[in-house]
Amino acid sequence: MTDKPTVDFWYEFASTYSFLAAERIDSLAAERGVTVRWRPFLLGAIFRDLGYTSSPFNMYPVKGAYMWRDMERWCARLGLPLVRPEPFPQNGMIASRLALALPDETRPAFTKAVFRLEFCEGRSIDDEAMLAQVVREIDVEQEPAVAAARTDIVKHALRRNTEEAKTLGLFGAPAVVTSGGEMFWGNDRLEEALDWAIGRR
Amino acid sequence: MTDKPTVDFWYEFASTYSFLAAERIDSLAAERGVTVRWRPFLLGAIFRDLGYTSSPFNMYPVKGAYMWRDMERWCARLGLPLVRPEPFPQNGMIASRLALALPDETRPAFTKAVFRLEFCEGRSIDDEAMLAQVVREIDVEQEPAVAAARTDIVKHALRRNTEEAKTLGLFGAPAVVTSGGEMFWGNDRLEEALDWAIGRR
Repeated sequence: MTDKPTVDFWYEFASTYSFLAAERIDSLAAERGVTVRWRPFLLGAIFRDLGYTSSPFNMYPVKGAYMWRDMERWCARLGLPLVRPEPFPQNGMIASRLALALPDETRPAFTKAVFRLEFCEGRSIDDEAMLAQVVREIDVEQEPAVAAARTDIVKHALRRNTEEAKTLGLFGAPAVVTSGGEMFWGNDRLEEALDWAIGRR
Repeated sequence: MTDKPTVDFWYEFASTYSFLAAERIDSLAAERGVTVRWRPFLLGAIFRDLGYTSSPFNMYPVKGAYMWRDMERWCARLGLPLVRPEPFPQNGMIASRLALALPDETRPAFTKAVFRLEFCEGRSIDDEAMLAQVVREIDVEQEPAVAAARTDIVKHALRRNTEEAKTLGLFGAPAVVTSGGEMFWGNDRLEEALDWAIGRR
């Protein structure tokens, strides 16, 4: 019996294209028999290393304008409303910690629910009470999860994720990295990344 | 009788992903009955406006490393060798002028041949003699084309292309713009752009 191929799905809660990828990756992976590990990280530290002063979508308004129009097209295709959160980008730190504090198998549902609040309803995702409510809605015990998310263990786990992302050469989100170390950047490369994972080149 | 849908294919001769798109767009467009107008332009002026000091692939080595690995994967898939030209990026001005001086119907063949010299053989594309040789190889009369490429008419045509690209909000290459003004940036969005052009959303 061979193990199912596994990929790491690296995402940042503030990232619009990570939201699209989170919506799409499960069914694409299931079609191919690929297991997905959901890996939240923080782009902020990586952007600082690159010398960015903000999201490139804010630094370069022409890029931002394109991205938002592109998001409109994608959301229409996925049948989802698009509401821009203010400010953009949001601070994804508390959401990331909570995601990491949850049992692995509940992380995708939590992540997708937070992304929808952020980008389909325009809600702020740095509100711990709102995030705790999401935890309850996905049927995870709320208090232990929130308490765990505040511990140094979880803070360090998020920092290690971000360090690992940097070591892998990530410079944006989302990205899919195969077990062989191949990186594919962007929501528009999910299919290719998952094909690669099953040896379809 | 309805006209065939038409898209503008904006490309920069120095751009690796423009090379891939030039290799792929004709068959993808033919499958969908879409007419492609080949529009060379110069990214340099647009990059300067954005405050870039070089190609982002040079400014941010981590992006450059990803791009070259991605190019290796894409070229392997297309059955093409990949040889990096030195320096990178090349200066595409003479090639762009010559492309614009040619009859429209010969521009794709010229463009693809120049891209292959640049990225499959690592040749410098600012060599007018080499470019003139390409003109001959695609069965266009060499001297009139080279002479036309040196005229102010053609220089202005290239400048107008670049101005139009800027007005459209282009910030990179390649991009496909539909007759309705929808822009799709990147080699990885060709299919989506051409689908959009025929009303497939």
